[in-house]
Amino acid sequence: MTGLMADFLDPLLTDPALIALIDTKVELDAMLSFEVALAEAQAQWGMIGEDAATHIVKCSQSFRPDLQRLGDATLRDGVVVAEFVRQFKAHVGTPHGDHVHFGATSQDVIDSALAMKLRGVFDLFDQRLKALLARLDRQIAEHGANELMGRTRMQAAIPIAAADRLMVWRGLVERAHLALGPIRSHVLVVSLAGPAGTSEKFGDKIGDIRHSLAGSLGLSVPDYVPHAARDRMAALGGWLSQVTGALGKIGQDVALMAQNEVGEIALSGGGGSSAMSHKQNPVRAEVLVSLARFNAIQVSGLHQALVHEQERSGAAWTLEWLILPQMLNATGVALVHALALLQSVRRVGKAN
Amino acid sequence: MTGLMADFLDPLLTDPALIALIDTKVELDAMLSFEVALAEAQAQWGMIGEDAATHIVKCSQSFRPDLQRLGDATLRDGVVVAEFVRQFKAHVGTPHGDHVHFGATSQDVIDSALAMKLRGVFDLFDQRLKALLARLDRQIAEHGANELMGRTRMQAAIPIAAADRLMVWRGLVERAHLALGPIRSHVLVVSLAGPAGTSEKFGDKIGDIRHSLAGSLGLSVPDYVPHAARDRMAALGGWLSQVTGALGKIGQDVALMAQNEVGEIALSGGGGSSAMSHKQNPVRAEVLVSLARFNAIQVSGLHQALVHEQERSGAAWTLEWLILPQMLNATGVALVHALALLQSVRRVGKAN
Amino acid sequence: MTGLMADFLDPLLTDPALIALIDTKVELDAMLSFEVALAEAQAQWGMIGEDAATHIVKCSQSFRPDLQRLGDATLRDGVVVAEFVRQFKAHVGTPHGDHVHFGATSQDVIDSALAMKLRGVFDLFDQRLKALLARLDRQIAEHGANELMGRTRMQAAIPIAAADRLMVWRGLVERAHLALGPIRSHVLVVSLAGPAGTSEKFGDKIGDIRHSLAGSLGLSVPDYVPHAARDRMAALGGWLSQVTGALGKIGQDVALMAQNEVGEIALSGGGGSSAMSHKQNPVRAEVLVSLARFNAIQVSGLHQALVHEQERSGAAWTLEWLILPQMLNATGVALVHALALLQSVRRVGKAN
Amino acid sequence: MTGLMADFLDPLLTDPALIALIDTKVELDAMLSFEVALAEAQAQWGMIGEDAATHIVKCSQSFRPDLQRLGDATLRDGVVVAEFVRQFKAHVGTPHGDHVHFGATSQDVIDSALAMKLRGVFDLFDQRLKALLARLDRQIAEHGANELMGRTRMQAAIPIAAADRLMVWRGLVERAHLALGPIRSHVLVVSLAGPAGTSEKFGDKIGDIRHSLAGSLGLSVPDYVPHAARDRMAALGGWLSQVTGALGKIGQDVALMAQNEVGEIALSGGGGSSAMSHKQNPVRAEVLVSLARFNAIQVSGLHQALVHEQERSGAAWTLEWLILPQMLNATGVALVHALALLQSVRRVGKAN
Repeated sequence: MTGLMADFLDPLLTDPALIALIDTKVELDAMLSFEVALAEAQAQWGMIGEDAATHIVKCSQSFRPDLQRLGDATLRDGVVVAEFVRQFKAHVGTPHGDHVHFGATSQDVIDSALAMKLRGVFDLFDQRLKALLARLDRQIAEHGANELMGRTRMQAAIPIAAADRLMVWRGLVERAHLALGPIRSHVLVVSLAGPAGTSEKFGDKIGDIRHSLAGSLGLSVPDYVPHAARDRMAALGGWLSQVTGALGKIGQDVALMAQNEVGEIALSGGGGSSAMSHKQNPVRAEVLVSLARFNAIQVSGLHQALVHEQERSGAAWTLEWLILPQMLNATGVALVHALALLQSVRRVGKAN
Repeated sequence: MTGLMADFLDPLLTDPALIALIDTKVELDAMLSFEVALAEAQAQWGMIGEDAATHIVKCSQSFRPDLQRLGDATLRDGVVVAEFVRQFKAHVGTPHGDHVHFGATSQDVIDSALAMKLRGVFDLFDQRLKALLARLDRQIAEHGANELMGRTRMQAAIPIAAADRLMVWRGLVERAHLALGPIRSHVLVVSLAGPAGTSEKFGDKIGDIRHSLAGSLGLSVPDYVPHAARDRMAALGGWLSQVTGALGKIGQDVALMAQNEVGEIALSGGGGSSAMSHKQNPVRAEVLVSLARFNAIQVSGLHQALVHEQERSGAAWTLEWLILPQMLNATGVALVHALALLQSVRRVGKAN
Repeated sequence: MTGLMADFLDPLLTDPALIALIDTKVELDAMLSFEVALAEAQAQWGMIGEDAATHIVKCSQSFRPDLQRLGDATLRDGVVVAEFVRQFKAHVGTPHGDHVHFGATSQDVIDSALAMKLRGVFDLFDQRLKALLARLDRQIAEHGANELMGRTRMQAAIPIAAADRLMVWRGLVERAHLALGPIRSHVLVVSLAGPAGTSEKFGDKIGDIRHSLAGSLGLSVPDYVPHAARDRMAALGGWLSQVTGALGKIGQDVALMAQNEVGEIALSGGGGSSAMSHKQNPVRAEVLVSLARFNAIQVSGLHQALVHEQERSGAAWTLEWLILPQMLNATGVALVHALALLQSVRRVGKAN
Repeated sequence: MTGLMADFLDPLLTDPALIALIDTKVELDAMLSFEVALAEAQAQWGMIGEDAATHIVKCSQSFRPDLQRLGDATLRDGVVVAEFVRQFKAHVGTPHGDHVHFGATSQDVIDSALAMKLRGVFDLFDQRLKALLARLDRQIAEHGANELMGRTRMQAAIPIAAADRLMVWRGLVERAHLALGPIRSHVLVVSLAGPAGTSEKFGDKIGDIRHSLAGSLGLSVPDYVPHAARDRMAALGGWLSQVTGALGKIGQDVALMAQNEVGEIALSGGGGSSAMSHKQNPVRAEVLVSLARFNAIQVSGLHQALVHEQERSGAAWTLEWLILPQMLNATGVALVHALALLQSVRRVGKAN
């Protein structure tokens, strides 16, 4: 999508590695993979002919969707799938084109493609959370024994070891990392249930076809019709905000520790000022707070979208589209900043 | 607390059974239980004398805190514990009073007491969720075979069976019920770590004392210092909103099905109008939507509170106090309305 | 309404003066005043007989609604008005009871009664904002010349005068105060439009009757049907959060200035700790931050309620009821804390 | 900025006309205009030499900032201005480069540039709101006399005229349009106060220079230091959500009216389905609901940013950057959809 902020903010507020996992090309590839794998699964279980599936697979390799028309149609239809399928059917041609997307619906394609994209996102976040844990372990080993003033209600309480605070940080990150497993299982599901969630074109083959399709796409099969049941999206939002909330607490602590009179952390780097060359601003620490508050706001939106009326709500579904990519990016950016911030720590605790 | 809405709204918007589990008396009893169990655990592990613990236990039975002073002190201190402990120490008298609350801090008491209250709340919600599932099962058995128009994007799509929609409802409720187990484990933990989370008065006995204390209070022992790590509160908020979101989807569907021209559900009861005696308003269905949106808003607050600075943030902690009881009540009320609404269903699907 | 938090939190987190302006008795009195003034206005413009109005006025003086039945009916109807009117009609008796509430609807009564209550609330807040401005003026006069370190991005920038920061605080409060006028005009409107907003029972007398009614109740007449147009409620929420946001910025600054190493503000009082008697916690400052974040969350709810379907949305309207009293109370409490906090300031700027 | 959603969603969910008013080039041009106008104002009032100002103006015409370095520096500094000024100073060269940005700070540049961009945005929204009002007037003239079922609490109440409902829509839009004036005055202010808001390099010339600068940039002069006082941003968010909330109510009503059994509105166009060619989905109506809920969520973020600590909060300011462009775009898109939706209305009320 066309971005909304000035380009020079990209390095501060976007995560290119994350964006590369969810961009237009990835989305279209995932949608095509869905249609191809569906045809293969349907052929495997005798719902369409083997020749049809073979031809569909073959044609998929040369299919280049007309992006302009996809956009025009999305404006009209509210979702890209009808036009995407029309183009792909035309590309496959007669007679096998009729077997493309057979029995499926827009939401099957979009939601399954989203799950496919999220697999890569989870892998990325998993690596970064592990790296963050390793970096925290190193900080604890290096600086943990240093004295730090324990502070409650913004007032000095009693001295603690730097490790005491760092372990709170680590625990928050570790629990976010541990929570990734259940979220992954919850979210990485295939959607295949047809226009109104009844799989009515599939008959008693729906179970087998779903499993074959899911296997091809690297997803699991939910024991429920996922169209109008958006609890996994709300749970995903909660997890993303759990991650940024953990990092926001770290950022807030660092910004407070880096105050001039406090001086309980030393960072290399740090941002300059247009007017005051002596300043070293804890920019990444601050941005971690911004991103935590940002995701804490957005999570409300994915919960609003739980009120998803009837068999498919255009309004609630579109709300997810507006919010989820923002939360993914904020989480990716926060992980990058947290890694760099911890990398830049030269000292925790009072200077001797 | 003094309530803010007119009393006549209580039957519509409060849950007396829930409130009875979290009210002032329960809170004070839980706080006292904490102090008593702490003394017993400390005596068990030789940190204070057996006679001190015995005397503290005995005195606890006759302790009646001065509520007026508790309130006055809460205004001054931001939390009730210092005054509560002062009163209890005075009641225990010299010399054993000195051993009351030894090594603990306000947050240990308040957070542990919260966990103790939530145990009852989870039991209540567990029962209601089970009852709701049973009621949905009955609806599915009775009406599931009826035809219903499947609707997507607010437009008729293809006919479905009533069971198709009811199963989506049931799945949402069932997953909320299944998610209760992990949330319960996450949240029902004891807090005991002292003023700055370092348990410095406990030495190497902290582990044993924590386990004894947790055992007495029916809680488990977290593997982290819980003071400034509020991820379990955000997770709790997410779960509560998952429940009301599931019920809000049911409420929205019912309100749409009950529209005059649609007539795909028949309810007994229903609210009257001050001006139009012919109307039968699906009040409970609407209120389920209100409560879902309400909790979807509040969940943002518990995520904001993840930015909990240093060893204890008065600002973030107080924000939790403002929000969590509201969410618990909204969830309790929603479960009551959902049960009654489903009880009142006379028909799902088109009338014959 | 039954409260949800422990009583001892009342002095910290509720505003008794505010609650006295919006409690059950005030609400019922306002509702009764509406019905009485409506009858008088209708008699004045010949829609009902003078004798009916006179009798209704007389009976209103001895009317004591049955609270239990009001609550029961509110559960059934979703709003108290039908039962309230039924009771009042019965009290007025035959034949004049038939003229009670003639042509009006529930929302006319509830929304007008809300406006009547808000008049008192605005007066209270107006007084407090003025007192706060006076207190800020005194602080500026006393401490404004002191040196303070100007800080940007949590880092020392260049020295400023205490007045520089205090004037920012003052400006925020002053603009909130100035914004009260337009909000008052926007919100203090009468609602009288009948069941579907068409005033169909009033004919061409509706304008005259509205003006007479509004005059009696001390409200103005909107140039639109206010039932389903909730922009004034969203605007009210925005204003309340503007107030608490201004005070939250002050609270955050004070908490940062009061840090031990910084010591740029001296406060008398301050909260004690259950474990550390040496501490002086800036409790009110912290709570101002909590209340600002609380209202910043709630404002989202009043904006969600803008999606108010058709002629009256039970779901959106009930959402307002759940949120607005909370925001009023939070604003009232914040004003009380801000006044007391500024009262307690002994020094701003570095100690000499 | 790099976008986060697939390109094919652009026509549905972005507003190119809006984006053209806030994109990178516009931002950089506005920043440069600020620096140039500042030099001119400073020369006018004798703070720098006329020759310096003349040279700065001349050099500005050939200045092409190095975008790569701007981005790199933004990551380091948290804001682009220091590097932008460094590049422009180098371009101006010795000795006049020293007079560039003299006495100003990053926030002066960014906030003034934002105000300059918003002027164009307000003009765009003003035009669209006027067009929308005209279109509503036409609908009222054409269809207002038709009968429509008045509906409260999702149930048929009494028949109304289509004009009754359309006038509610019109009133919401009109009041949003009327509110644009005050918001414009509130927001379109110049920021010039230096590193800590004290204008310390300007001496007693600050008032004159501010007025000259504001005059050049088409902005007004606030009577307060705007750096840490963010009430105008919260007010802007409130207004944007007021607009989308008004349109979201229209969208929700249209989606309900367009239900098959209800049929109280007829639209031309409407979206197709990938599986059901007979369907005509009211896509724009649904998206209006999504955008209303989206902005209702985001408004919370601009209120959270009111807690803007000290003289400049990196955390709160960055939060504004993350949210405001999203809200502007959502508002722009909603206006486009509302215009097209109303254009497509063929009938309001029951078909005869």
